[in-house]
Amino acid sequence: MSTQKLHIGIIGAGRIGRVHAETLAFRLPESQIVAITDVNREAAMSVAARCNIPTIAESAAEVFANPQIDAVLICSSTNTHADLIVEAAKAGKHIFCEKPIAHNLDQIDRALAAVKTAGVQLQIGFNRRFDANFARVRQAVASGEIGVPSMMHIVSRDPGPPPISYIRASGGIFVDMTIHDFDMARFLIGDEVEEIYTAGGVMVDPEIGLAGDLDTALMVLRFRNGVIGTIDNSRKAVYGYDQRVEILGSKGKIATENCYPNQTVISTGESVYKDLPLNFFMERYTDSFASELRSFVTAVLEKRVTEVNGMDGRIPVAMAIAARKSYDEHRPVRLDEITA
Amino acid sequence: MSTQKLHIGIIGAGRIGRVHAETLAFRLPESQIVAITDVNREAAMSVAARCNIPTIAESAAEVFANPQIDAVLICSSTNTHADLIVEAAKAGKHIFCEKPIAHNLDQIDRALAAVKTAGVQLQIGFNRRFDANFARVRQAVASGEIGVPSMMHIVSRDPGPPPISYIRASGGIFVDMTIHDFDMARFLIGDEVEEIYTAGGVMVDPEIGLAGDLDTALMVLRFRNGVIGTIDNSRKAVYGYDQRVEILGSKGKIATENCYPNQTVISTGESVYKDLPLNFFMERYTDSFASELRSFVTAVLEKRVTEVNGMDGRIPVAMAIAARKSYDEHRPVRLDEITA
Amino acid sequence: MSTQKLHIGIIGAGRIGRVHAETLAFRLPESQIVAITDVNREAAMSVAARCNIPTIAESAAEVFANPQIDAVLICSSTNTHADLIVEAAKAGKHIFCEKPIAHNLDQIDRALAAVKTAGVQLQIGFNRRFDANFARVRQAVASGEIGVPSMMHIVSRDPGPPPISYIRASGGIFVDMTIHDFDMARFLIGDEVEEIYTAGGVMVDPEIGLAGDLDTALMVLRFRNGVIGTIDNSRKAVYGYDQRVEILGSKGKIATENCYPNQTVISTGESVYKDLPLNFFMERYTDSFASELRSFVTAVLEKRVTEVNGMDGRIPVAMAIAARKSYDEHRPVRLDEITA
Amino acid sequence: MSTQKLHIGIIGAGRIGRVHAETLAFRLPESQIVAITDVNREAAMSVAARCNIPTIAESAAEVFANPQIDAVLICSSTNTHADLIVEAAKAGKHIFCEKPIAHNLDQIDRALAAVKTAGVQLQIGFNRRFDANFARVRQAVASGEIGVPSMMHIVSRDPGPPPISYIRASGGIFVDMTIHDFDMARFLIGDEVEEIYTAGGVMVDPEIGLAGDLDTALMVLRFRNGVIGTIDNSRKAVYGYDQRVEILGSKGKIATENCYPNQTVISTGESVYKDLPLNFFMERYTDSFASELRSFVTAVLEKRVTEVNGMDGRIPVAMAIAARKSYDEHRPVRLDEITA
Repeated sequence: MSTQKLHIGIIGAGRIGRVHAETLAFRLPESQIVAITDVNREAAMSVAARCNIPTIAESAAEVFANPQIDAVLICSSTNTHADLIVEAAKAGKHIFCEKPIAHNLDQIDRALAAVKTAGVQLQIGFNRRFDANFARVRQAVASGEIGVPSMMHIVSRDPGPPPISYIRASGGIFVDMTIHDFDMARFLIGDEVEEIYTAGGVMVDPEIGLAGDLDTALMVLRFRNGVIGTIDNSRKAVYGYDQRVEILGSKGKIATENCYPNQTVISTGESVYKDLPLNFFMERYTDSFASELRSFVTAVLEKRVTEVNGMDGRIPVAMAIAARKSYDEHRPVRLDEITA
Repeated sequence: MSTQKLHIGIIGAGRIGRVHAETLAFRLPESQIVAITDVNREAAMSVAARCNIPTIAESAAEVFANPQIDAVLICSSTNTHADLIVEAAKAGKHIFCEKPIAHNLDQIDRALAAVKTAGVQLQIGFNRRFDANFARVRQAVASGEIGVPSMMHIVSRDPGPPPISYIRASGGIFVDMTIHDFDMARFLIGDEVEEIYTAGGVMVDPEIGLAGDLDTALMVLRFRNGVIGTIDNSRKAVYGYDQRVEILGSKGKIATENCYPNQTVISTGESVYKDLPLNFFMERYTDSFASELRSFVTAVLEKRVTEVNGMDGRIPVAMAIAARKSYDEHRPVRLDEITA
Repeated sequence: MSTQKLHIGIIGAGRIGRVHAETLAFRLPESQIVAITDVNREAAMSVAARCNIPTIAESAAEVFANPQIDAVLICSSTNTHADLIVEAAKAGKHIFCEKPIAHNLDQIDRALAAVKTAGVQLQIGFNRRFDANFARVRQAVASGEIGVPSMMHIVSRDPGPPPISYIRASGGIFVDMTIHDFDMARFLIGDEVEEIYTAGGVMVDPEIGLAGDLDTALMVLRFRNGVIGTIDNSRKAVYGYDQRVEILGSKGKIATENCYPNQTVISTGESVYKDLPLNFFMERYTDSFASELRSFVTAVLEKRVTEVNGMDGRIPVAMAIAARKSYDEHRPVRLDEITA
Repeated sequence: MSTQKLHIGIIGAGRIGRVHAETLAFRLPESQIVAITDVNREAAMSVAARCNIPTIAESAAEVFANPQIDAVLICSSTNTHADLIVEAAKAGKHIFCEKPIAHNLDQIDRALAAVKTAGVQLQIGFNRRFDANFARVRQAVASGEIGVPSMMHIVSRDPGPPPISYIRASGGIFVDMTIHDFDMARFLIGDEVEEIYTAGGVMVDPEIGLAGDLDTALMVLRFRNGVIGTIDNSRKAVYGYDQRVEILGSKGKIATENCYPNQTVISTGESVYKDLPLNFFMERYTDSFASELRSFVTAVLEKRVTEVNGMDGRIPVAMAIAARKSYDEHRPVRLDEITA
């Protein structure tokens, strides 16, 4: 174990910035937060007070300029990610950036080029890879426990849609919501998707359709190795956050169920029931947020490659663009139509 | 496979008599029902019509006197069992008799003596041994799959109490209801109980208490081999028939769950639920009724010892007497106090 | 209750013919089998002996000519179905016919026309509608228990592939295997599919590919009412028969699990496990075979329309043709391209 | 929310002392640890470094003498608890003390008298009450969700026995292990036990028997309100920590299952399996340790009575004594034989 501490600056003190700050402060003794900044100074002050962060910086630039800081977490809004990556890289900081890097590939490529030039580490915030369920599924695939995979299903449904204002700025369901599932598909199968077919519609709220988006989508993925799979997305599952995967292989299948607040079952004269599953990502993925940061801090300290790198940030955006194109053109779309 | 058919007479055309007749007629081609009788002649006629039984006998004696008949099923009321066993044995018929043989050991001993003298086969209707769940548990214990057993739990609850008139004639909860669980305990562990301690009460219906009986009982069994176990009985589980067992061994545990009419789970905004388990023994143990008869018919045809013999009929009655004595005297009671 | 019996003739004494004969003989007292025939006379004799069928007819024609017979079961090979339906209809017999009616729509249309002209009843053997699990799902959709459906998933995997000789004569996976799932999709949603997209491949056995068929297929269905769904088919699931569905609606979801031979769970030092699910359709769908015949017999006796009629037999064949066309042409195919 | 912080001293820096220190330091901002002490000074230093505790005290007396300290956590070995409670109370400190207070009632009564005289708060470390599963069960009972309770079962098995040296100093299985279950029984039913009957034996390790203890025990509890229940204890369940309860009531039953590291199920050609449950109390009850401290800190700050008070610490010890007496004398023992 390294006895050296990683000194960190945080850009963005919103919901996810606060979660990461708490993880670093209370669960990762090998890290130390040096500074935090946010366009909303009060938010930064609140997190700083909670997590004993000594400096509230005026700007991201001030964070990048701080020679004490080894690495930064970029937790600001998506439209700032690419530029901040470029600046952080130029300042020689290692970078953890929330997903997505950007909504278009040009910006992403510019950011990744800067990272490459600077020779810094970059990890993208695909936290679900670090969830105990999905990690167990990946392990079963990678170890051959279920043999050679042939089919894969991902179900990923939110408990309810975000406000329309959020939808409008989100870049659309594929880049906002499915992007996690695109990453999950690549991660679980350990191979790249070469073609996507999308069916979908507006079944939750007509307003979402008026905003030019879908709220229900079903994608078929074809991987280079022949695996075929589906992603099922809905903006509204009244029973709560529905996050499951299943993979069929030549030696068996593996499937994960949702997580529940307790393991209690009640039987009455009417039915046999249990309480609803954990409602949303903050409850469901609590531990994975901590694990992804532990992975990042350790990788940087030990000078190892991060587990979710820049290309892992780029490819799901390309997949999202392909998925939308398939929906618009009503035909299967190859990834190389997008990335070529 | 024997090509010879076993010719059978049935005494009693009530609910269980009818079930057995249908099994023999429609599912056991190696058997043939020759005659049926019942004090209620209409009941006998109804079953005969349903199952193509050629003869409706006037009495059990007429059945026993029929030289075409190899074996009889005794499905009449409990108070007739012992005498009918004696008569059937004297007539040289092999015997399948519903449980219990009688409510006291003297009558049982008289019946078993007659069976022994006649050299006929006797099987007692402890059908639950033939249930797929309990058979699987027994297999796990017998094969060593869970190692050496140390603790055992049986839960056995009815969906609702029978009429008070039934309770009054039943001989009490231990001989009427727990008797199946006493048999199950011996069957699963493969050893004899040497001591019983009973706690219990009247928690379902005060009328049951006024009739001198309990409706809720909890017994601790100590087996000769050191295993300790419990039986949990209630006359009323509002959610339906609750029939489970669990055994802890040195290499693991095995537990069975209830059976359900379907494997469907519904998730709504309120809860995650499924339909109630199968309500009572006719639904829950359907297949075991057929399996026990198949076992009987095969054993007789192949001249093998039956799987549930006369002593298997006697011992649970002794256990029931001990359980009641423990409750009355508020102390653990050894089986040899009863059987000595 | 009708006291009249339905007199039945059976064409075909293979596996399914025998199952149906046993159901009629032993579980449906309102029916009576008058005659059976099979090109393999010994098979017919064996079933006749088992089920007390008085006449072994020389041919289907002899069955149709028998004035005692009200209805026929067509359980012969698929290539004979359409012609036999025509002949049976001409003879004025009500008809229960195994699926599929034929592999092409022309033959089916000829058969349905004959049925219509004759004014007889026709039921197609889509037994899974009568399975307790799927019936419960349909009930939840029809009653509004899960609100308005938006997405549907069917998983339908066999434990292992049939012999290549069977594959060659089968008409291909879509008409041989998926046809049940096409019926299930229409049944569960209660609406028609208007477009199908198919992805698939040969992942189980290259010989199946050499025979011109697929062994792994994933279809996306778009219904007229907007529901989108998937069907997942594999010829080989090493853990046994995998038969599940799931539907998401505006008020909840419903999902069915597989059926198991027992409800027993074993925990050892290595894992917590249970035995494999019921292996194949004869075990899994036993009760549904009986229920579909009960439904047919009752419908005919009570002069009601059968629950699975001629169009229910035709449409899944059209869907199978569309699914194959989609696979061949690598694009979504509308049903009206096939049926127009 | 109170803005005042509770200043805390910790006596004992072993496993549980460290867990509590981390909870206070990282998860309870309304608390502040002022000092820690341990007979093993290095242990205290290690925890102090981890949790930023400013003072490492030489002795408990030094902690009690510190006027900055409002409350103390007593996490030292059991034989010191009673004396430390007395001293802490005399010093006017509020007290959180690990269970059990002592192995005999005289010492406990002396400690409780000191607490009463001083008018300080006392909470005993029965953390399982704060576990999400058991809290949900208590809620179902208290709210009437399952009606009036009649039977209760607690299964509480460790993954493996502690070293014999630990067993010898433990006070025996009833005061060391069952004490949690005695508390759970009182908590879940919300009433007092009036009689206990114990069966048990040495089935795990003969050395435990030579040490004068049992390793397997089954108790029957009779509550004043008529409820009857069982506690099942084993020092060794090879599959891991087994912590379940079940309660039958007039309107239904409620049961909790074990907790697992993931919700993943794998189906292969041999079985359908999942990974073992969480292995022991540190994994299984992580959250409950934090919740109990939150409850203590809040109760003291808000001057409310603690949720687990001194009598809650005394009664389970009396129950343990009764349970052992029942085992030794082979008869049911009334609690008032012990406490009178």
